[in-house]
Amino acid sequence: MSSVGTPDPPANDAWFTDDELEQIRRRLPLLYVEALPVRVDGLGRVTEVGMLLRVNDGEMTRTLVSGRVMYGETVRDALFRHLEKDLGPMAFPLLPTSPVPFTVAEYFPWPGSSQFMDARQHAVSLAFVVPITGTCEPRQDALEVTWLRPADATSDDVLLDMEGGRAALVRAGLASVGGLG
Amino acid sequence: MSSVGTPDPPANDAWFTDDELEQIRRRLPLLYVEALPVRVDGLGRVTEVGMLLRVNDGEMTRTLVSGRVMYGETVRDALFRHLEKDLGPMAFPLLPTSPVPFTVAEYFPWPGSSQFMDARQHAVSLAFVVPITGTCEPRQDALEVTWLRPADATSDDVLLDMEGGRAALVRAGLASVGGLG
Amino acid sequence: MSSVGTPDPPANDAWFTDDELEQIRRRLPLLYVEALPVRVDGLGRVTEVGMLLRVNDGEMTRTLVSGRVMYGETVRDALFRHLEKDLGPMAFPLLPTSPVPFTVAEYFPWPGSSQFMDARQHAVSLAFVVPITGTCEPRQDALEVTWLRPADATSDDVLLDMEGGRAALVRAGLASVGGLG
Amino acid sequence: MSSVGTPDPPANDAWFTDDELEQIRRRLPLLYVEALPVRVDGLGRVTEVGMLLRVNDGEMTRTLVSGRVMYGETVRDALFRHLEKDLGPMAFPLLPTSPVPFTVAEYFPWPGSSQFMDARQHAVSLAFVVPITGTCEPRQDALEVTWLRPADATSDDVLLDMEGGRAALVRAGLASVGGLG
Repeated sequence: MSSVGTPDPPANDAWFTDDELEQIRRRLPLLYVEALPVRVDGLGRVTEVGMLLRVNDGEMTRTLVSGRVMYGETVRDALFRHLEKDLGPMAFPLLPTSPVPFTVAEYFPWPGSSQFMDARQHAVSLAFVVPITGTCEPRQDALEVTWLRPADATSDDVLLDMEGGRAALVRAGLASVGGLG
Repeated sequence: MSSVGTPDPPANDAWFTDDELEQIRRRLPLLYVEALPVRVDGLGRVTEVGMLLRVNDGEMTRTLVSGRVMYGETVRDALFRHLEKDLGPMAFPLLPTSPVPFTVAEYFPWPGSSQFMDARQHAVSLAFVVPITGTCEPRQDALEVTWLRPADATSDDVLLDMEGGRAALVRAGLASVGGLG
Repeated sequence: MSSVGTPDPPANDAWFTDDELEQIRRRLPLLYVEALPVRVDGLGRVTEVGMLLRVNDGEMTRTLVSGRVMYGETVRDALFRHLEKDLGPMAFPLLPTSPVPFTVAEYFPWPGSSQFMDARQHAVSLAFVVPITGTCEPRQDALEVTWLRPADATSDDVLLDMEGGRAALVRAGLASVGGLG
Repeated sequence: MSSVGTPDPPANDAWFTDDELEQIRRRLPLLYVEALPVRVDGLGRVTEVGMLLRVNDGEMTRTLVSGRVMYGETVRDALFRHLEKDLGPMAFPLLPTSPVPFTVAEYFPWPGSSQFMDARQHAVSLAFVVPITGTCEPRQDALEVTWLRPADATSDDVLLDMEGGRAALVRAGLASVGGLG
């Protein structure tokens, strides 16, 4: 399962033993969704970017909302499920009308094929910018959601803390909304 | 004007006499914004499309929210202003986070250069899909807003009533949200 | 394989028996790429759309270039590989600079979740419009590539022959390039 | 002018005296196109970014291909015309199939409304990434085209030389093709 705390979705994983899933991870690309949570003003302009602070193996890292698309699940359903899991049930995200992501991030377990890396697997992730209208109560292993102004979210010291090359994802997400300086 | 604190665009049209504007219309492309109003469900899927019924020269036509970008006005401000003008102050539109339109429609006063035509002028229009969360009370010359299911909005008899080739715009807008069958 | 120096994707299907792959198809969404081949003029305008005529179970259907992304393979590599497989080595496709598809098509083995269906599996497909500059020599099970003007490609009798709901994909692809009337 | 059979745009600027154009610049937003020239490999990946070195008022600045859309001219025609003007007739640009820009840049003659500024006017610019397949021979006031690797093109010392906030445009263009680290 995801190292970023995704819960079991529809009970299809029950059909795979841990061993089976491990085998599959080494032989098939897995489909993910990722979300860059933002606050917007009344004209849709991004005013703040939300980042998750997470503890992985005793190390603090910043990350995005992220998780796998399960069998039988639409991309929208997966996006909503992971937003709720990571930001809590009162976040009230506004999912995009378009199914087209702002970028497609490709994670490989080796360097060089892409700017993104994931030691566990080959994952292909559809990444969306998602306005949040409610209150975030991070659950599971996410300690905190920090809201930063766009200029601060892309400062070097913030982006250095991001895992797997996701700094590039934050920059690309902000660029897609005209918010990258 | 905008209820979200954006200033009114400078009243520059006052600087042009009718004659001057008429001259300019024949010598410069004018910048427009257009919006395809939609209703969405909790997952962002488009459930209904809003169309304006308008009387032009005694003829009833269907159209979209549309209007010019004024000097000093941002594209977002123009979009908001025209949505409010055409749908009323209680429509509560959710403007997109991205400044990138789903298409760029080019209107020429002659046939052949594009699928779009506007007898008055050369206009270039940035077209957006905009979810509406409130109540529409059309003002001005719009008689009515009709909400149609996507499949009905793209039926031939509805699209035949659209002016200036905007049927193609409705189809392209729905295609951009994965809603064109 | 690719003529531009990308390595072959690891031959991982060899690691799955037919039975295993069959099992996986019922438990994981599989990642696909699809391409709508087009001819363009010197200004990038689409002048023709290419459709594959294929025989499936004795029935003739029209379809697009389509295929799975393999383990270790980038989306670009997969797109190139399937274009070459379906259109031959002299097609000389111009792959897009952007990794963002014009739409994300979701195929389910049951009706109702999406406008797309695939009896065999849950597949999520990244769909691209790809200009072809060379000569097509369809290989494998594709009998023929037919080039149609955009208006003809979206006529009802052509789209009726398309499998799995791909008519919507042709329309969306054409809409994305401003070519849907 | 365009070598691909598009007619010259009507010479409408001749219709405006310098004084008239100056007046209009202060009362109407003007429509521009901009292009980020790139070199791509056989898979469409951006390998190099082209920047124009220009002398403005005795100062050297880096900039992009840029220019106004004329009355009666399509966006594509304008893009082609300005690419030819700035890069020469042997540049052989591959214009995008889609009319949708990677971003819409809004230039105002005052600070604060946008990240972009243009002291002369309010301009709205549709920005495209355009692969160049031929040889560049800059004409007019451009001294030179420099080709830089994406990582170098976004280094601080290069971007500092860019006029009007176009550094953000280079970053957004690269982000749109997955090339911003």
